[in-house]
Formats: sequence, structure tokens, C-alpha cells
Amino acid sequence: MRAGPSQDEVRRQNLGALLRYVHVHGPISRAELTTRLGLNRSTIGALTADLTAAGLVREEAPRGSRRAGRPSLVVLPESSRVYAYALSIEVDRLRAARVGLGGEVLDERVYDRPRDLRVSEVVGPLAAFVKEMQHAAPEGGRYVGVGVAVAGMVRRHDGLVRLTPKAGWVDEPLAEPLAEALGGDHTVRVGNHADLALLAEHLRGVAVDTEDVIYLHGEVGIGAGIIAHGTLITGHGGYAGEVGHMIVHPGGRTCSSCGARGCWESEIGEEALLHALGTDGSGRIPAHQLIAAMRGDPGSHEALRQIGEWLGLGVANLVNIFNPEMVIFGGTLRNLYLTTAAQVRSRLNSLALPASRELLRLRTPKLGEDAALIGAAELAFTQLLADPLSEAPVVPRPPAGR
Amino acid sequence: MRAGPSQDEVRRQNLGALLRYVHVHGPISRAELTTRLGLNRSTIGALTADLTAAGLVREEAPRGSRRAGRPSLVVLPESSRVYAYALSIEVDRLRAARVGLGGEVLDERVYDRPRDLRVSEVVGPLAAFVKEMQHAAPEGGRYVGVGVAVAGMVRRHDGLVRLTPKAGWVDEPLAEPLAEALGGDHTVRVGNHADLALLAEHLRGVAVDTEDVIYLHGEVGIGAGIIAHGTLITGHGGYAGEVGHMIVHPGGRTCSSCGARGCWESEIGEEALLHALGTDGSGRIPAHQLIAAMRGDPGSHEALRQIGEWLGLGVANLVNIFNPEMVIFGGTLRNLYLTTAAQVRSRLNSLALPASRELLRLRTPKLGEDAALIGAAELAFTQLLADPLSEAPVVPRPPAGR
Repeated sequence: MRAGPSQDEVRRQNLGALLRYVHVHGPISRAELTTRLGLNRSTIGALTADLTAAGLVREEAPRGSRRAGRPSLVVLPESSRVYAYALSIEVDRLRAARVGLGGEVLDERVYDRPRDLRVSEVVGPLAAFVKEMQHAAPEGGRYVGVGVAVAGMVRRHDGLVRLTPKAGWVDEPLAEPLAEALGGDHTVRVGNHADLALLAEHLRGVAVDTEDVIYLHGEVGIGAGIIAHGTLITGHGGYAGEVGHMIVHPGGRTCSSCGARGCWESEIGEEALLHALGTDGSGRIPAHQLIAAMRGDPGSHEALRQIGEWLGLGVANLVNIFNPEMVIFGGTLRNLYLTTAAQVRSRLNSLALPASRELLRLRTPKLGEDAALIGAAELAFTQLLADPLSEAPVVPRPPAGR
Repeated sequence: MRAGPSQDEVRRQNLGALLRYVHVHGPISRAELTTRLGLNRSTIGALTADLTAAGLVREEAPRGSRRAGRPSLVVLPESSRVYAYALSIEVDRLRAARVGLGGEVLDERVYDRPRDLRVSEVVGPLAAFVKEMQHAAPEGGRYVGVGVAVAGMVRRHDGLVRLTPKAGWVDEPLAEPLAEALGGDHTVRVGNHADLALLAEHLRGVAVDTEDVIYLHGEVGIGAGIIAHGTLITGHGGYAGEVGHMIVHPGGRTCSSCGARGCWESEIGEEALLHALGTDGSGRIPAHQLIAAMRGDPGSHEALRQIGEWLGLGVANLVNIFNPEMVIFGGTLRNLYLTTAAQVRSRLNSLALPASRELLRLRTPKLGEDAALIGAAELAFTQLLADPLSEAPVVPRPPAGR
């Protein structure tokens, strides 16, 4: 028990709470804010005035109000003027977006990437995207930072990339070279792809109002973001959620990512699909096309059914371990789940304990492929939402190159 | 952001913080308390006086102080006067303890139980133990409630026992019949055995100062308590941690507890030991004797080695999923781990990702078999520590029967 917060701290907390509220929930009347935040009208008025002066929110008369008397002004985030850059490093492509306060994707770029690019070869195109988008951005905007989603293991305290599948990155610094390539004082924060996609779905997507939820992301391999009691589980170093390397089939195929035999991802990831189709076109055919090919080929139906059973078995393990209220199937697992839902359900019913699965909902992402970008933008917004009027982390000038 | 706490709330929080501090850390000087709690001397003095008047703490002159001047008084919990009853319902025995504030076991009873006892047959002996201990307790003590550890799945919000291994309890209310058998206004709280053992080890044992830790409890089956970011993971309904039913060996033995094939506990639990020894003496020979028998029989060494490998495989899965800083082997797994540590380590090295295991410590419990009882007492102390001067949950008169 520490002594209570100072007046300055209270004001900062209140500013952050108000800004976070409109960032997450969108336009809301002042009257409603007093209820939601438990603060009185004059305090809400003063906080709104400060945030408006800082260019973070604006106020409008409500549309189509039918009430008599002066209507309460609506507060909304300055989505088009206050924004972050969100980058996503995936196995087969690089993506970049400009994401406005409020979570709106304002601009987006995609680059199909060869799998064997080194970190140094990824940083250039990403920085170029950011500069391109910055040129296209309206004048006078306010840029708050860069968030990066990486399909790989990311160290919690400094964003070091410990391991990525296929590209074979081991212990590669990313935030620093990226900040350097961007020029200027950029705050670059790095997170795991599945973690950030889950954060976005939890904040704005299918998992709003859930407290215990697992987001499974399939790409070449399988990773998970896990929220328990409303909080993202990172593990001690930041590497929690490597569910693709759960051994479910001792003596099974050797995992090309970690070298162990019988990893879950060897049974349901890209390699399993390629193996079932008897092809070695790794990386040349997107997973949804592989799944479509299997659906269209009666000779592959049994193999597809088996992959669905492995998917269900792994999910049952996670349900027994976490007792979640929701499991979300993202990336390639979205299609795989939709194609094999009967097998998944059947395995869950036979392998997950009744009490552990009784309230479970299986879902696909609401934000689709944007989830990781929106989550990465949240990383970049973190500091602004914690202390809206501090200028420290905000770089008002555009990135270098303009 | 809500409005700040009232003065009454602040005082209650401060009383709770001080009482919790001495409950967890033991005797401490007033001077030290001002530092630890960030409160000034006069506030600490007033809080201590209130708690002393309520009979919850007392003050003593420090022993062997060599400093000049008046030494700061030492505040200590009234361990022998303020206590809870802690009960543990295990597969082969019932245990009961009187546990003092500060976590000290003051009295203890054990009853070897037949495996097929119904809830109604368990409640009687447990209530009798409590009454017995109450008779033996010193006059004028203050009793705060009852906590129960159950080796089974416990619903979070009401303590309903959803499933226990062997006894075959399904959806059995426990808190209510127990409160009834005890007579009077007893607050009975129920939790899962592994969860409560972990809480105790985290508060007072081997896992103090860890934030991400897994406690594996072996009895007949295998369960886990899991703490992530310092908070116990319960899952949506309270059933998280059923790691024994993680499928690790598809097509393996049928699990006598859940009916699935290939559960982890079928490979490392009591059945695996009995199977390896070629005996069916379920429940008649304690696990540590089974393990000792296997160690003493060269013909069983290979089987023991294999069990150790399965133990390591499951731990590797949990390490990949949680990236914990510590895994604790409790109950029968303590002996099994100590006997097969080489296999466990070897499997971890080959199956857990290097980044996920690099800072991992494998440990056995510090509190031994008392862990679950001490954890159950924590359940009972919860209310007192949240609001030390409220009389509501405290039953000053002894349980019925005195």
C-alpha cells in the first residue's frame, strides 16, 4: 500500500482513461463519459478541453439528436490526424499500415517477400513503405511511433527476435536497425504476431468482453496468443504461446522449425498440407489454396479429415490446460478450421474434459488479416495513452526522407 | 478511471496491507514497515494500534538490538490466537490443520480414506477433526474460516466439485454440507489442490519472487497450478490446469479418469507405475514405494526411464506453452522427478525451444505436503486480510460441538 497519487498523477491518469475510452469505443457523448469514467461533468469538460487543445480528440454536435435542450457534445478521436505505423513481418510477405487513433487502418502496403530474406533485407522495404505512406499522409498529422508484429519469438524487454520459422533468424535485433533506417527519433516496439492479433481481437474484434481466450495463428507454423484473466500471457522472457511445438505425436514427422519429432505444427501446418498432397511446393502455394485443392480432390479427403483431427486434438489439449471461453482460429487455421469443423468438434468432445469445454466458443477473427497490424499499432499507441500530454515519445516531425 | 478512494477505504486498504505484510513476511519493525508500505511513522503507529486492539498483531521489543536509543518496536502476527482451519481431500486420505495467521501449522490430523467415499462420508470425519482441534485450541482464540483443498476440478464461483479422480464425484456441492456439518456461520471456501499448493509455495516457499511458475501435483492423476504474471490462472470456470489430460500419446492407454487415450497422466501417474511393475495394486501401495520398488528392480529400470521421458516430454510441452521460470514437482512427482531427473532434463533439452527453457529452474516443493493445507488456509484468511476490522466473516464463537 503506497501513499495516494498526486494531483498531477490523477490528472494524467484521467486524461489517459478518457483518451483510451474514445480510442477503444469511438465517439461518445460527454454525458456518457461522466457515467463510464465515474467523473463529474466539469472534470470531463476540462479533460476534453486539454485533449482537444493537444489535437488528440475533437468535439461535435451529435447527429440527429431529437432531445429537447442543448445536446451533450460528442467526443471522438482524431483518427485521421493522430496515427501510428504498424508493420508486420510474415513468412511470405511484409505489410505496413498507417493506423489512426481509434484503430482505423488509413493506408496499407504489402510486399511479397522471399522466405530467405535477412533482417537487413527486410528493414529497407519496411522503412520505404513508411516513408511512402508518410508522403501520402495529410499535412499536420501527428505521428506517435512504430509497432512491429513478427511471426517469431520476441524477447519481452527489448524486442530481440530469438527465432523465426523458415527465415531462420536467431537472435536478431530488429527495433534498432528499423529505427535507424527510418531516421529520426522513432520509438519502435516489437511483438509476436499471434499476441498482437489477439490484443486487437480482444480490444475491437470477436473477443471483446472475454477474459480467457486463445488466438491460434497459422502461417507456416502455428503460434498462439493467450489471454488469461484479461491479461496477455507473455511468459518469463516473452516466449509463451509456442503451442506449435507441443509434442502431440511422439515418433511423428521431424519439425523443420525446431528439429523435434511430433510437434503439433508438423501435423497441421504447411508441411502437413504439402505432405498430404504429395507435393513439395513449400512457400509457392498459399495454404488456403492447398486446403481448397484437398477439398476438391476426393483422394485427399481422408488426409484432410486426419489433419482436422490433429487440429482438434491440440485444441483439446489447450482447453484442458487453460479452460478458455473462446478459441479463435486465425491465419491459415481459419480456413482449416472452417473446412474441418466437424473433426475439431468431435475431437474436442472426446478429448477435452466436459467442465473445461462446456462454455467454450470456437470462432474466426473479426478483424481478419488486419488484426496483427491493429495490434502492432496498439503497441505504438501505448505510451500516448498512458500519458497523453507528454511530448516525449511523440515525434511531431515526419520521418526522415520527406 | 474512477474517483479516488474515500478515507475509510484508504484506512481499510492500509490496515489490510499492514496485516498482509506481517502475515506473509513475519515479524518486522515499525521503522521497516514505514519503508515497505510507503506510509509515515504516525500512520504506521495508528494502524498497528488498531490491529493490536483487534487482537490480530502484537508488538514486542526487538531481541538483541545493539543500537543506541529507543529501538523500533517489532510487529508480529498473533499466529497462535488467530487461525483458520485448512482441510485437504486427497485420493487416499483426508487431512485437517489449524493454521495460524502467518501460515504456521499449529495442529494437524490425518485420516486414511478408502477411495470410494462419497462426499457425505467425507464431510463427517473432516467436521470431527475440526471440532477435535477446536477443543485442543487455546482459549480466547479467533477463528476466521475454513479453506478446503480438493484433488479435483472445482468451480470458481461457488466451489462445486465437478470431477474428482477415483472417487468419481461429479457435480458435488461441498462447501454447503461442510458448513452444515460444522454448525454455525462458517465461511467455507473450496479450491483445487494444485492451485492452493502453488499459492502457498509462491507466498512462502520455493516460488517466492517468481512471476511465472507451474506447480505439478501428482497423486493418482496429475494436475497443475499455474501462475502467470504473478496471478493464478483459473480459466473461465475455474478448471484450468488439467494438464494430466493433455494428450501426448495418441493411441496409448485409456485414461481411467477421463476415458480418452494417451493422456499424460496415463504415462506418468499411478497407473503407469503399476503397469510397469505388472501389478494391479491400485491404491494399496503408495507411489513412492512403487518408485522405490522400480529402482530396486533392475528389470524395471527401462520402464522407469521411459516414465521419466514421458515426464520430461509433458514438461517440455508446458515450457513451450508457458515459458515459465520455474516448474515445481509436487506430490508423487517429487520422487518421480528426483529419480528420473536425467531423463527429464534430456527431454527438455531436445523438445523445449532453447529460448523458452534457457532460464528455467526445476524444483521440488519447500513446504512439502503442508503446501496445500497452507494454501487452503490462505483461502480462509482472504476476507480478514482484505478488511481486518470487519467482524462480518469472523465467527468469534467456536464451531458447534464445544
